[in-house]
Amino acid sequence: MSNCGAFPNAGGIRPIKYSDGVLRLIDQRLLPTEESWLEYTDYQEVAEAIRSMVVRGAPAIGITAAYGAYFGALAIETENYADFMTEFAQVCDVLAGTRPTAVNLFWALERMKSLARANPDQPVSNLKIGLEYEAMAINEDDIRINMSMGRHGAALLPDQVRILTHCNAGALATGGYGTALGVIRAAVAAGKDVAVFADETRPFLQGSRLTAWELQKDNIQTVLICDNMAGYLMSKGAIDAVIVGADRIAANGDVANKIGTYTVAVLAKEHNIPFYVAAPTSTIDLQIADGSQIPIEERDIREVTHIGEQQLAPAGITVFNPAFDVTPASLVTAIITEHGVAQGNYTEQLATYVRRSG
Amino acid sequence: MSNCGAFPNAGGIRPIKYSDGVLRLIDQRLLPTEESWLEYTDYQEVAEAIRSMVVRGAPAIGITAAYGAYFGALAIETENYADFMTEFAQVCDVLAGTRPTAVNLFWALERMKSLARANPDQPVSNLKIGLEYEAMAINEDDIRINMSMGRHGAALLPDQVRILTHCNAGALATGGYGTALGVIRAAVAAGKDVAVFADETRPFLQGSRLTAWELQKDNIQTVLICDNMAGYLMSKGAIDAVIVGADRIAANGDVANKIGTYTVAVLAKEHNIPFYVAAPTSTIDLQIADGSQIPIEERDIREVTHIGEQQLAPAGITVFNPAFDVTPASLVTAIITEHGVAQGNYTEQLATYVRRSG
Repeated sequence: MSNCGAFPNAGGIRPIKYSDGVLRLIDQRLLPTEESWLEYTDYQEVAEAIRSMVVRGAPAIGITAAYGAYFGALAIETENYADFMTEFAQVCDVLAGTRPTAVNLFWALERMKSLARANPDQPVSNLKIGLEYEAMAINEDDIRINMSMGRHGAALLPDQVRILTHCNAGALATGGYGTALGVIRAAVAAGKDVAVFADETRPFLQGSRLTAWELQKDNIQTVLICDNMAGYLMSKGAIDAVIVGADRIAANGDVANKIGTYTVAVLAKEHNIPFYVAAPTSTIDLQIADGSQIPIEERDIREVTHIGEQQLAPAGITVFNPAFDVTPASLVTAIITEHGVAQGNYTEQLATYVRRSG
Repeated sequence: MSNCGAFPNAGGIRPIKYSDGVLRLIDQRLLPTEESWLEYTDYQEVAEAIRSMVVRGAPAIGITAAYGAYFGALAIETENYADFMTEFAQVCDVLAGTRPTAVNLFWALERMKSLARANPDQPVSNLKIGLEYEAMAINEDDIRINMSMGRHGAALLPDQVRILTHCNAGALATGGYGTALGVIRAAVAAGKDVAVFADETRPFLQGSRLTAWELQKDNIQTVLICDNMAGYLMSKGAIDAVIVGADRIAANGDVANKIGTYTVAVLAKEHNIPFYVAAPTSTIDLQIADGSQIPIEERDIREVTHIGEQQLAPAGITVFNPAFDVTPASLVTAIITEHGVAQGNYTEQLATYVRRSG
């Protein structure tokens, strides 16, 4: 199978590479000090890569899981379709069990299962080939979608703009180019004068480790701050817009995203700063009415108490470590998708956009 | 000179110890993993201890500077009063130049200089003895003041209360007992059911390293969170009150405190949660009309880019690292001082309290 990378380079790294039956992921846990690529051909190991955050970011998790599903399919030994489907469902369940909040994971696995379901007459060997292509298509589509989102989003920004972003909704969180950072890349490409303030994003430090790293690589002007400095900057008039990504968007426009996003949204409201969310329609979950139904993952307290081997807090202290929060639609100025910008009545517009994605 | 520690143990560690001409400071940079005490007898070294944050917290800085001023005075070799005063002013200038935001530093040095100014007829050797007693008095007074503040503040709290605090306004930030944590200690002592949520407080991590450590030592129920999790907790109804300390309070009630305090105040307003500031009158600066005139220290970017030797951000990235922010009086529910609780018209009440301190 040829390299899945025919799509022209659109700016930003491509963190997920697939060729000749091998998935390669840049180990995001080691950035920014080490660029190390890990290789995968086994679905259980792919599941562990998602769980342990070798790869993170809602779209990137979806793409990775799709390749994982293909590896799982490839290892199924039966030639019987029904048996294959039973085993394949188990593979997908393992992958679906890795992380609870980002809906792109379930969306990508559903897309893989749909393909298999739609082809009961194919020999299993052909199904496997189809699943490989489907995973690659999910990967390629994601980059195309991000560039489309970038164009829609960049049009919202003034010619001179200082943008705050939280977490990493960049190339590293996707197949490439990024969602929130894709909008920033598109604005830069359109000749706008863009400065980015990047929240470091505790506890996993996606902002300092990943966003700062990939924007620096692209020579986009970036200032790193701690999460708790954003309010001060806004009070000084230093921020013109906020753009973040999303892990799941409810039918009413409530947005689950990295912990701390809600705080940024409240601050943006207090300072009359537009708060934009950039996310593909695969992040929209029409099955849930509002954000209160989105499961919020809680992660290992060691993410808060330690950095590497360094202990930051007294042993035995109680820690609360939610990985996401929910920003109500009322605080969201607009949701930027690949099909256009939703604003105002999210329920109707989001449903329209999801239908358009088929 | 006997041990300056006759005041009954009021709960919480005493981070500043003085006896027999030697100042001992717990090295707050090494907490919570190492309890190491450093000894000082030289004012230049005391200045460096303040600058490098061996000791931090507005009241603790003031106390430490007072001992530093005494060491500086002790080393002045002249017996001539006028010459002594010239050299002593230089000593105080060095100590005053260590950190710009907390006004207690200048307040304590002014108290030391006032004593020297008020005694022109004393032999210099007697002045030195007087300055030693004055430093010890500043130290002892601070603990008494904190306990008084604690009583006033505890009365504001319901019998069951979940309190969010930011940074460390505890025993470690003062002579002992603490300002914000003093209110919490007093509430616990009064039999209230108190749970504390402690913001870790990036970048210096005073919350995880210091607040969690000293509350754990006192068996006060504490949950450590990252700064960006406070909004999520408030949105879930999990916080009943916020209490923080202050580094400088303007005449109109605007409060400079650790970076991130302003964000917490905006969040508290959004969720109708009372936002209390606990600070001694020595933190109130009637010389400045409002918070816009408070100088905000910017510190080394390494505090943001590294933890210990561990690099968190790409080399060469631009970083903004303000150590404080200003919360406007309009977001402050009440200011708790040793003389009582100011609420509503801060300008008049704060002036009254400061006058009462003489």
